[in-house]
Amino acid sequence: MNTYLFSDLKEGMKESFTKEITLEMEKAFREISGDENPLHQDDEYAKEAGYKKHVSFGLLTASLYSTLAGMYLPGKHSLIHSMEIKFIRPVFVGDVLTVSGVVAGKQEDMKLLRLKVQIVNQDGVCVSKADMKVLVLK
Amino acid sequence: MNTYLFSDLKEGMKESFTKEITLEMEKAFREISGDENPLHQDDEYAKEAGYKKHVSFGLLTASLYSTLAGMYLPGKHSLIHSMEIKFIRPVFVGDVLTVSGVVAGKQEDMKLLRLKVQIVNQDGVCVSKADMKVLVLK
Repeated sequence: MNTYLFSDLKEGMKESFTKEITLEMEKAFREISGDENPLHQDDEYAKEAGYKKHVSFGLLTASLYSTLAGMYLPGKHSLIHSMEIKFIRPVFVGDVLTVSGVVAGKQEDMKLLRLKVQIVNQDGVCVSKADMKVLVLK
Repeated sequence: MNTYLFSDLKEGMKESFTKEITLEMEKAFREISGDENPLHQDDEYAKEAGYKKHVSFGLLTASLYSTLAGMYLPGKHSLIHSMEIKFIRPVFVGDVLTVSGVVAGKQEDMKLLRLKVQIVNQDGVCVSKADMKVLVLK
């Protein structure tokens, strides 16, 4: 886990990590959220809707933005303030996602870090983008 | 699960549900995301940072927005397109959260539903707000 202080962080600094989406992650997300929507679990239903199989939850993918902030950029002293997320392309079980973020700016008065983050799959396709504001506690 | 069609949905329609945040939900979110940040698990560390105990993950709270769209408004035919989330106040284990949403508008050409959503705790304090755009598949 990184431990960047607010004063350490400079525009252009980058971090990234990679994670595979599994059926177990989807099951756990379904239990946490209570979202039983069939598009996120029923392959036949999803095919009728035009997808190759069931589509992973957007907010499961977005949970990886929590990890980017809380573990990497800035790491330990992070608390997410706000975010704007776009879900661009569907994510499926077995996709290997690379989550990356770059420091886009700093708001000194509130110790807010502005990050531009994105998630790209194993085929190089961007599946999600977000702008995040993260409070840096130290 | 509601099954509203795009044509059924009118500005001002509302839905809500209530859910308690548990330690088990936090553990499951930590496993899914890989976010091991101490603020989200270590009460002593969180106290030093000025909180009464460890703070729940913002994106765990936000997972309830998935449920609002996927189960309630519009329900079955939902696919989240994009969202802007503000994390306003901390959430803790044991908090009983009421998640509510109202239809704020419709974009006919893309079958996009615009929702204003919020999460209020058992003390009536708003802990999170979001604007969501949801694709309605039918």
